[in-house]
Amino acid sequence: MDEVKVIEIKKSVLEDNEKDADALRQELKRKGVFLLNLMSAPGSGKTTTLIQTLNRLKGRLNVAVMEADIDSDVDAVKIQSATGVPSIQLHTGGMCHLDAEMTRQGLDNVALGGVDLVILENVGNLVCPAEFDTGAVKNAMILSVPEGHDKPLKYPLMFQVCDLVLINKTDVMPYFDFDLDKCREYIRMRNPKAQVIPICAKTGEGVDAFADWLVENTKNWKYA
Amino acid sequence: MDEVKVIEIKKSVLEDNEKDADALRQELKRKGVFLLNLMSAPGSGKTTTLIQTLNRLKGRLNVAVMEADIDSDVDAVKIQSATGVPSIQLHTGGMCHLDAEMTRQGLDNVALGGVDLVILENVGNLVCPAEFDTGAVKNAMILSVPEGHDKPLKYPLMFQVCDLVLINKTDVMPYFDFDLDKCREYIRMRNPKAQVIPICAKTGEGVDAFADWLVENTKNWKYA
Repeated sequence: MDEVKVIEIKKSVLEDNEKDADALRQELKRKGVFLLNLMSAPGSGKTTTLIQTLNRLKGRLNVAVMEADIDSDVDAVKIQSATGVPSIQLHTGGMCHLDAEMTRQGLDNVALGGVDLVILENVGNLVCPAEFDTGAVKNAMILSVPEGHDKPLKYPLMFQVCDLVLINKTDVMPYFDFDLDKCREYIRMRNPKAQVIPICAKTGEGVDAFADWLVENTKNWKYA
Repeated sequence: MDEVKVIEIKKSVLEDNEKDADALRQELKRKGVFLLNLMSAPGSGKTTTLIQTLNRLKGRLNVAVMEADIDSDVDAVKIQSATGVPSIQLHTGGMCHLDAEMTRQGLDNVALGGVDLVILENVGNLVCPAEFDTGAVKNAMILSVPEGHDKPLKYPLMFQVCDLVLINKTDVMPYFDFDLDKCREYIRMRNPKAQVIPICAKTGEGVDAFADWLVENTKNWKYA
């Protein structure tokens, strides 16, 4: 159970990432697989959030996980052993983001038969991953309370490209100068359509709403 | 006091960053200016740490600050108004790091006469800034407790290139599963020479040690 597949991702040779991303999305549509690209800064709690979420999706969706990291396979191992959800680790070899071709290299190593939802945990970075369409159906990001409510001002593109912003670690709100209303306002400035869900991955608070969002969006994608 | 110079940094045209970085370091040596490149993930507390540190360096060193960000000038304004230390804002125009030529563009806008130390706050990112020598004399990084003690495993290069690791937000240690001994061990794995100083920028704890480190290293650089 603790053994996970580790894929060394090669740098893309294709030049036209947008075209490649659209082609990947169309292929996923044909296969009835929803791909979520989950982004965040390092240490915002992506893996803990995934563990909580995957345990809530049991019996509702069949899920597979791709964990991208510069190095190490701690996340994929952690997720697979905590949830039983098949997980693979993608090593980017120092690269700071994934593009569509790199995402496809990962998907080629996932058994997609019967899978409804694939969650791609992108490299921890608020800058570069926002610049590359991975071919995902939707983008989500996690902003954690200790990072501060001003992040939409400093990393505009990340907030522009995300359909959903999870605000994590709400349990430590009393210990940080984090203004949730101001944060919502800054996110709206960058992207009026972005949905915002406050969560606490440690206690599980709010994670049901994220699980529901995933179920709804996956069903819309599969059957609409 | 609240007006700061904002410099729009242009992408480097030079190909050989290492050569350029060495040339910049030699120039700084001739001028007797120590340049520190301060890196971290978004929201680790770089700006708050700088404010605390700059207030402790008064009467010991003449300092100037360059704040790099994708967008916004909140950090430079905050630092200048809280400390009186001359600060300029560098806009990278979406770029995720600074190289030596970009750093030089910033330094060209700093009045270096009488300045002992320039602190460059790099773009918040644990990946790309580690790949580019800025021409700084030393590299330091901040890892904050909420990010987790496993970061040296996931972002090896950042820890390899840093002479100093500040572990910030130690006041919230009781609310996070952060193992300081394990963190020190992981940092040593990546870089046995890196010095580690735990600090709390909010309360000021440990910041004296960082200020002393800056004074000592600046003096070594100027007079050795």
